[in-house]
Amino acid sequence: MESETKSGRRPGNPQTREAILAAAMTAFTESGYAGTTIRGVARAAGVDPALVMHFFGNKDGLFGAALAYGGVPVRQLTESLEGDLDTIGERLTARYIALWEDPEIGPRIRAVVTSAATSPAAAAILKEFMIHELAGPMVKLLERDHPEKRALLAASQLMGVAFARYVIQIEIMTALTPEEIVACVAPSIQRFLTGDLPLR
Amino acid sequence: MESETKSGRRPGNPQTREAILAAAMTAFTESGYAGTTIRGVARAAGVDPALVMHFFGNKDGLFGAALAYGGVPVRQLTESLEGDLDTIGERLTARYIALWEDPEIGPRIRAVVTSAATSPAAAAILKEFMIHELAGPMVKLLERDHPEKRALLAASQLMGVAFARYVIQIEIMTALTPEEIVACVAPSIQRFLTGDLPLR
Repeated sequence: MESETKSGRRPGNPQTREAILAAAMTAFTESGYAGTTIRGVARAAGVDPALVMHFFGNKDGLFGAALAYGGVPVRQLTESLEGDLDTIGERLTARYIALWEDPEIGPRIRAVVTSAATSPAAAAILKEFMIHELAGPMVKLLERDHPEKRALLAASQLMGVAFARYVIQIEIMTALTPEEIVACVAPSIQRFLTGDLPLR
Repeated sequence: MESETKSGRRPGNPQTREAILAAAMTAFTESGYAGTTIRGVARAAGVDPALVMHFFGNKDGLFGAALAYGGVPVRQLTESLEGDLDTIGERLTARYIALWEDPEIGPRIRAVVTSAATSPAAAAILKEFMIHELAGPMVKLLERDHPEKRALLAASQLMGVAFARYVIQIEIMTALTPEEIVACVAPSIQRFLTGDLPLR
């Protein structure tokens, strides 16, 4: 027989799982990977820590599930790839910067990147994300040699700009308008994706 | 009268300061910023924790001093800038990748970047480093409009490639040879530094 928690939520309830994931996303975003605990997430969601463990196994499992639940709307990025290949660099860069500029989504992506820098488990999740969710759809579209390498070179460049502007927040980078960033960076993305590259 | 430590080192001795900095660099490199403690560094250097506090104030002070002491050989990067502006992108990119590939220096830069992702104090140090040590010398050389923005855009791109290849170690990126990386990335660096950019 299922026991009820302090908040009255039933453990097996889908809302309970969602409440845990929402609390986890908030915790990872505000406190980072290292600063987030199963116990703290359970308290915020009004459930027993054992239930969090039951659903997600450990902190890594919770991190991955929280990302998939409310993390980064990858679909918006992959949608931006559709269209003329000659302007794919500008579409992708503009959509990517728009996600980081979004007051809700930006801090979440930031939490993923900073977590990946310190936790091997979080790095593995970010790698999976970059390879399958971000680079994967590009690879299918590109009609040139070495599509995986091209996609990852482009993704690396996008990540570097975001790291400087949104993670460590270098003032010269934060002083640029989003439009300037896109206009400056898009040609590099375009070259990586469709230009001549000396890849073997 | 000065007391001697367990190891027999005198507190005021320059070798003592160096021993602390060397121990700190090792600790930050191996355990990251969050995993490094004043107490652990003191133990590794064979001195009293109070002496570490006396010299460096706190962990942030120790981190900054350790970097300046044995961190990143910035001079090698700035030297690479000297010469023909038309090939500055390739020289800078090649030297930058060579530093990351170096078995001693690479892990140290990695420690700085991962620390910056989690510690605001470490981020401030990395920002200072990028603005004054890395971008500063470029700014002086560039003969175009908006030299600071150009230098930071280039530095961001270089950081992105290193993040993907050396920090989270995406296999497609680690599979590239250093020469391929340089050949692919250098034209972007060149464009940021000397090309036409839509900056205001």
